[in-house]
Amino acid sequence: MFVDIIHKKKRGEKLSRQEIEAFVKGATDGSVPDYQLSALLMAICLKGMDEEETYELTRAMAQSGETVDTSFAGGIVVDKHSTGGVSDTVTPIIVPVLAQAGLKVLKMSGRGLSHTGGTIDKLEAIPGFRTSLTLDEIKEGLEKCGAVIVAQTANLAPADKAFYALRDVTATVDSLPLIASSIMSKKLASGSDVILLDVKYGSGAFMKDREEALKLAKCMVSIGSRAKKRCAAIVSSMQQPLSDAVGCNLEMKSALSILHGREKGSLYEVAREICARIFTLAGKEKDLKKARARFDEAIEKRLALERFARIVKLQGGDKSYVYDPSLFKDASFKVTVKAKGSGYVSAIDAEAIGKTAVALGGGREKKGDLIDHSVGISFKLRLNQKVEKGDAVATLYARDLKKSEAAMALIEGSYELSDGPQADDRLLYAYVTEEGIEYYE
Amino acid sequence: MFVDIIHKKKRGEKLSRQEIEAFVKGATDGSVPDYQLSALLMAICLKGMDEEETYELTRAMAQSGETVDTSFAGGIVVDKHSTGGVSDTVTPIIVPVLAQAGLKVLKMSGRGLSHTGGTIDKLEAIPGFRTSLTLDEIKEGLEKCGAVIVAQTANLAPADKAFYALRDVTATVDSLPLIASSIMSKKLASGSDVILLDVKYGSGAFMKDREEALKLAKCMVSIGSRAKKRCAAIVSSMQQPLSDAVGCNLEMKSALSILHGREKGSLYEVAREICARIFTLAGKEKDLKKARARFDEAIEKRLALERFARIVKLQGGDKSYVYDPSLFKDASFKVTVKAKGSGYVSAIDAEAIGKTAVALGGGREKKGDLIDHSVGISFKLRLNQKVEKGDAVATLYARDLKKSEAAMALIEGSYELSDGPQADDRLLYAYVTEEGIEYYE
Repeated sequence: MFVDIIHKKKRGEKLSRQEIEAFVKGATDGSVPDYQLSALLMAICLKGMDEEETYELTRAMAQSGETVDTSFAGGIVVDKHSTGGVSDTVTPIIVPVLAQAGLKVLKMSGRGLSHTGGTIDKLEAIPGFRTSLTLDEIKEGLEKCGAVIVAQTANLAPADKAFYALRDVTATVDSLPLIASSIMSKKLASGSDVILLDVKYGSGAFMKDREEALKLAKCMVSIGSRAKKRCAAIVSSMQQPLSDAVGCNLEMKSALSILHGREKGSLYEVAREICARIFTLAGKEKDLKKARARFDEAIEKRLALERFARIVKLQGGDKSYVYDPSLFKDASFKVTVKAKGSGYVSAIDAEAIGKTAVALGGGREKKGDLIDHSVGISFKLRLNQKVEKGDAVATLYARDLKKSEAAMALIEGSYELSDGPQADDRLLYAYVTEEGIEYYE
Repeated sequence: MFVDIIHKKKRGEKLSRQEIEAFVKGATDGSVPDYQLSALLMAICLKGMDEEETYELTRAMAQSGETVDTSFAGGIVVDKHSTGGVSDTVTPIIVPVLAQAGLKVLKMSGRGLSHTGGTIDKLEAIPGFRTSLTLDEIKEGLEKCGAVIVAQTANLAPADKAFYALRDVTATVDSLPLIASSIMSKKLASGSDVILLDVKYGSGAFMKDREEALKLAKCMVSIGSRAKKRCAAIVSSMQQPLSDAVGCNLEMKSALSILHGREKGSLYEVAREICARIFTLAGKEKDLKKARARFDEAIEKRLALERFARIVKLQGGDKSYVYDPSLFKDASFKVTVKAKGSGYVSAIDAEAIGKTAVALGGGREKKGDLIDHSVGISFKLRLNQKVEKGDAVATLYARDLKKSEAAMALIEGSYELSDGPQADDRLLYAYVTEEGIEYYE
């Protein structure tokens, strides 16, 4: 009886593998009514799950639908997942870097929702770029380019979709085992050998608290390891956007600027760290410094840029955009936002900046909303930067005056100034493996 | 948004009156989906509700359907509620005692479920006795006899029915505020001035633990007081059946035996205490001893018996059964269960005895099951009683051999023996009012 399973978790007891499978099956095929699922979800939120239960939940969810057999790829298949943030345009940078080093990258990405942008939306800013590929096309892409970037298929971990639809309306979203299993079930189903997670904390992340992000990282790494994957996590800051670009065209230009070797900054740093860690996990490099140097080299020698152009072409995109990013056109209505005071930037509300992009039409309030690639924000401030009253803080690219006014107000409220440089602006906090936690200096 | 209400309770925060009303309305009219209701119910189970929230929940539930206006009764309307047990046949005793003292008793009772018998089932053992009365008939009964005993109408506190249906299948039954509000919503809706609760603890009660029962009593008294009722609770033992009779005909005979002045024992004691407390609550007596004496007198002088005969007649029943209880016929198949060892009775599983009656066909496993009035158990043991191997422990009244065999096994496992009289056999534990707790000696 399913009610006995709910009772057990309500009392804070551990669920067995069979009980967890009944839960996942019931959610997937509809055999357990929603009101019982939601009661159990709430009990899990309030009573928790241990590592083994969380793994079993993830495993059952991963097996609830299609699973990708990547044995055809003929190499080590690697994957990366970010818990989401603002200006997080890492994927178009790291995928070609990893591929040119001989790794196989089957990158499944999502669309943007709420204040976070989605990789798939950004890539679709390249005219012709197709993110829904057949299995034959994926095989071809991995063979010829070593990488494909595709939208997650609908039938990957359907249990997660069923749970998520319910969690969203029953206040059961913020639970560590439920968040971890949701992310990791899709990663396990997509069949990669190496999984590198980038768990974000801060104003622009879903996890505002750094230690909570660390807990989530540990939880997910534990799941990955139990599933016999080479799995690790970076815990990194989203206390400010990763670059000054927010919006599809602007972000693609920003990522391409890195691939062209013209830009460094936080986005470069995070992309390099992700690649370096993947190189070591995949056995391509033993030494982390050498692994980082390998990233620098792939950029400097334009190896990643060339590889990206090949990937874009194979997925139907216009590769001239890769070579000439100025082809991405910004919305014609431009507004400069100026500083209202003087001081040092002590806090940046990255979520507010992400929401500004949504307000301009460059993001989604709800699933299915259309996105305008041309709008966005060039947000010039960084934490601890000195600002004088009247300095240009941001440039808005909008379709019309009305939207730009709402956006201006959001940007004006999105940062704080203080008398001195006192913000914690560290980018990388910790690296988590099965063996333990390594803190960055 | 209802999800915000769930969030609030999930964080352990206090819900406002408006939020609780939205919850009750949503359950009653179906405007809030079951999966949201069940998530909130689970959050309430695990995070609790304070006194004010519990009162607001109860009040909203009481007002979710019909409420009985008892102003027509022309006197103090009194009510009593037992949380249920085995051999709890108090109602046919106390109702005529209270009525003959000039109080108005509008007693709404329920049917038996699981191991507990129901007053309505027991009264229907009297041929012709009708428990579904029109409002005019209720008025006539209160006018002519000072009392009616009726089945609870379907439209009293419909929110409770909606909640209960969901709680039963979502493991959210055992929550103090939910249990208390379920009971008290019906009591408030039925419009009495004085409410005396009998909260049972022990092997045959829903609350196995005495202190939990005390908590429930305090919670319900608090609700009643906030609703401006004269409300109090007795906390009494259900560590053993209240009398030796289990089954409709047997229990009616047992209750009538008390009204005839032929029997004392636990059933008599509890009935007397309930009446005495109601007399004081209703202002009929100030002194508890005198109030108890008034009960004894009503029995000794056959005033209660005569009053009961009038009530039975007015509700269409054959009052010759009241004067001659031997008219209640026991099932023809009789089996005597004998003691398998010698010693003192150290524990009695009253729930197992109640379930024996169900196994014989005298109770319900699920709602809607038919009940056989003629079957039952005469269970002769009391706690701390000395037993010799081979003594008659119980007599089963069954319809057939097969059922009696299953019943025999249940009875044989329903008691324990030890070397000396060591069981706690106290009957009355505490009396709870708004002012505080008075413990019985």
